[in-house]
Amino acid sequence: MAFTEIQYGVADQVATITLYRPDRLNAFTLTMRAELIEAFDLADADDEVRAVVVTGAGRAFCAGADLSGGGGTFGRSGREAELVNGYPRDGGGTVALRVARSLKPVIAAINGAAVGVGLTMTLPMDIRLAADTAKLGFVFARRGIVPEAASSWFLPRIVGIAQAMEWAATGRVFGAAEALEGRLVSRVYPGEELLPAAYALAREIAENTSAVSVAAVRRLMWSGLSASSPWEAHAADSRLMTELGPAADAAEGVTAFLEKRPPAFPMSVGEDLPPGVPSWPDDPYGG
Amino acid sequence: MAFTEIQYGVADQVATITLYRPDRLNAFTLTMRAELIEAFDLADADDEVRAVVVTGAGRAFCAGADLSGGGGTFGRSGREAELVNGYPRDGGGTVALRVARSLKPVIAAINGAAVGVGLTMTLPMDIRLAADTAKLGFVFARRGIVPEAASSWFLPRIVGIAQAMEWAATGRVFGAAEALEGRLVSRVYPGEELLPAAYALAREIAENTSAVSVAAVRRLMWSGLSASSPWEAHAADSRLMTELGPAADAAEGVTAFLEKRPPAFPMSVGEDLPPGVPSWPDDPYGG
Amino acid sequence: MAFTEIQYGVADQVATITLYRPDRLNAFTLTMRAELIEAFDLADADDEVRAVVVTGAGRAFCAGADLSGGGGTFGRSGREAELVNGYPRDGGGTVALRVARSLKPVIAAINGAAVGVGLTMTLPMDIRLAADTAKLGFVFARRGIVPEAASSWFLPRIVGIAQAMEWAATGRVFGAAEALEGRLVSRVYPGEELLPAAYALAREIAENTSAVSVAAVRRLMWSGLSASSPWEAHAADSRLMTELGPAADAAEGVTAFLEKRPPAFPMSVGEDLPPGVPSWPDDPYGG
Repeated sequence: MAFTEIQYGVADQVATITLYRPDRLNAFTLTMRAELIEAFDLADADDEVRAVVVTGAGRAFCAGADLSGGGGTFGRSGREAELVNGYPRDGGGTVALRVARSLKPVIAAINGAAVGVGLTMTLPMDIRLAADTAKLGFVFARRGIVPEAASSWFLPRIVGIAQAMEWAATGRVFGAAEALEGRLVSRVYPGEELLPAAYALAREIAENTSAVSVAAVRRLMWSGLSASSPWEAHAADSRLMTELGPAADAAEGVTAFLEKRPPAFPMSVGEDLPPGVPSWPDDPYGG
Repeated sequence: MAFTEIQYGVADQVATITLYRPDRLNAFTLTMRAELIEAFDLADADDEVRAVVVTGAGRAFCAGADLSGGGGTFGRSGREAELVNGYPRDGGGTVALRVARSLKPVIAAINGAAVGVGLTMTLPMDIRLAADTAKLGFVFARRGIVPEAASSWFLPRIVGIAQAMEWAATGRVFGAAEALEGRLVSRVYPGEELLPAAYALAREIAENTSAVSVAAVRRLMWSGLSASSPWEAHAADSRLMTELGPAADAAEGVTAFLEKRPPAFPMSVGEDLPPGVPSWPDDPYGG
Repeated sequence: MAFTEIQYGVADQVATITLYRPDRLNAFTLTMRAELIEAFDLADADDEVRAVVVTGAGRAFCAGADLSGGGGTFGRSGREAELVNGYPRDGGGTVALRVARSLKPVIAAINGAAVGVGLTMTLPMDIRLAADTAKLGFVFARRGIVPEAASSWFLPRIVGIAQAMEWAATGRVFGAAEALEGRLVSRVYPGEELLPAAYALAREIAENTSAVSVAAVRRLMWSGLSASSPWEAHAADSRLMTELGPAADAAEGVTAFLEKRPPAFPMSVGEDLPPGVPSWPDDPYGG
């Protein structure tokens, strides 16, 4: 797999996806779009990977859509063959929805400017950490378009509708402190501490938990945010507890806890994911 | 248009709606209800208006329902001709749902007491700013009724269910600091700085963004909060990006950005709103 | 009613449910499950009860599932006769959904360790207060299972999806300060001030509000969190305002307010609950 606009690597049970067009502030292109989707497919398929960290090369995270096409940029989707309700699928949305159905937890390490699709692509990631120098913006209304990447679904559920509307209606570029205050990012770090913090969180997951549990919980939580009532969640829980309760990881998890030793979970996402792991209600890809 | 219980004016691209019964602490009546709905119709129909600021005349924002009818006040809806599921429509709700489908962003400048319907009417506004002397309360349970104006939908999505239930179950009147801490208001100001802050925010929108984009984003975000999954948002995004991407505002927005000059967007809400702008799923008025 | 693993008592219009296996850190069992459901039935049926406080005996709130069965603990549901979609109902979920449809507001006083089901059972309670020494954890992924008790529905709606995923994916045990910062608990107190604070809040409700209003508002708010749009909430409001507006509590509430005296509401939940009080959309028990 030769990527040209991202880098992908796995070390210490963590996959790192690096947006890699540093001379263009990692501006988003159709190529980057396809490579990101491919990278999340790789991470899901690799049992060695327990978490994914996404960051940018150089001084930016992602400056948004590549505008080198000038005023006509947003008039060309480039994906006329992929339709939803008869319209070419929004490109940022294809990435966002792929991230949303990831089986591995995803941590955004926002090392610098994250603007437009460079910011909306992080919304379906589980946790956003930012460098104190990062600049962020949902600038779409300043470009004559709208926030995409399904951000009208994600953003108000993450930061509340008042904060979402203030950022989306003004199109303001804001700093990491405002992002933290508005709960868009979970924590802010000096630049050199950002990636170490992201990896520490990834390792906390890798060292302590069942990979199958974490894959199931990720789908359960995100689809729970779509569930029409807690009864729907209860049905999903009941099935998963029936499938996972008697399985080998639960036996190991309880035994290790009682024996006060670290767990060594035997199950893998590739082999042992139970059928009760939920999908989005209308995801044609079954995620 | 002669209003008697509100004032309506447009200046510098901002419409101001002032609740205007200062000798009655701007208490809510059927007349005020009808005038508020009419004012939002005016603001939506006027391309000069880029944002709406709602405030109160005198020392209160709105003290709630006018109780001069005594103990029988809530026994008379006064709107037997407007029904929903066979019941007279709650009056506060008719205002709230009109605000919810506004095409212009709405900023509440809560200058003083905002109690009962005087507070619930602000929930579908995008951003609430408050004077530091403001007193707020969801006092319905102290009057033997329930929070109305669809606030059971809005309030827990704005402040979370725990804060919503604490305020609604106690009926407590609380200060601006508690409102800020509970994330009901975005910022608190000394009284004389409140309206200037509201207008500064409105101008930030008016000077930097496409009116069509902002109208589309407002509907997109609020209906996104109702969407059953991010796939529904993705379909709406994809249609809007297809409609707005090739349009004149997107060309101007990108070009102005590349030329590092302020944008001069040519499109108007009155003429150019694309058909893909979403409505609420069950809004009989198509908003 | 002889309870063996909880204590139940009513005083000063407040029911207290105490998890009572202090020598086992109040670990959750099938017996405790059944007794909790029974206790909420008692509280709902008793018009003397205006609010419910849930706490733990001794130094813990609830240490989670009783693991004395060892590695096979989660392989035995013990409730094969109660099914949802063909699967034995998750035990924690049966408690959570009973709490969710309570007619009385519920305050969790988390006096010590609240882990696993000991924490998820508090999510459908209205308000969580914690002792500053409390330790909390959604430890399920460390045991090879998933967060249950419909927590994939409740938790992201209470703390947001990013915080929910961080706690659920790491399985971390965290302190009261992190719980407060993450908005899982509303306030933190020194241990000896916790129960007094919970009772003060319960009394604030009991002394100022209509019991019928509070029962209606509790169902309205929680089901509003499930409503598909504000129009659904508006229909529910309109019906309830039609039913409660002309009723005796509204007359008393308004009259007492105008006369500046404490209200003496005549209506009771047992006799006067209006038919418009909402249920969950798919609750087979009508709550």
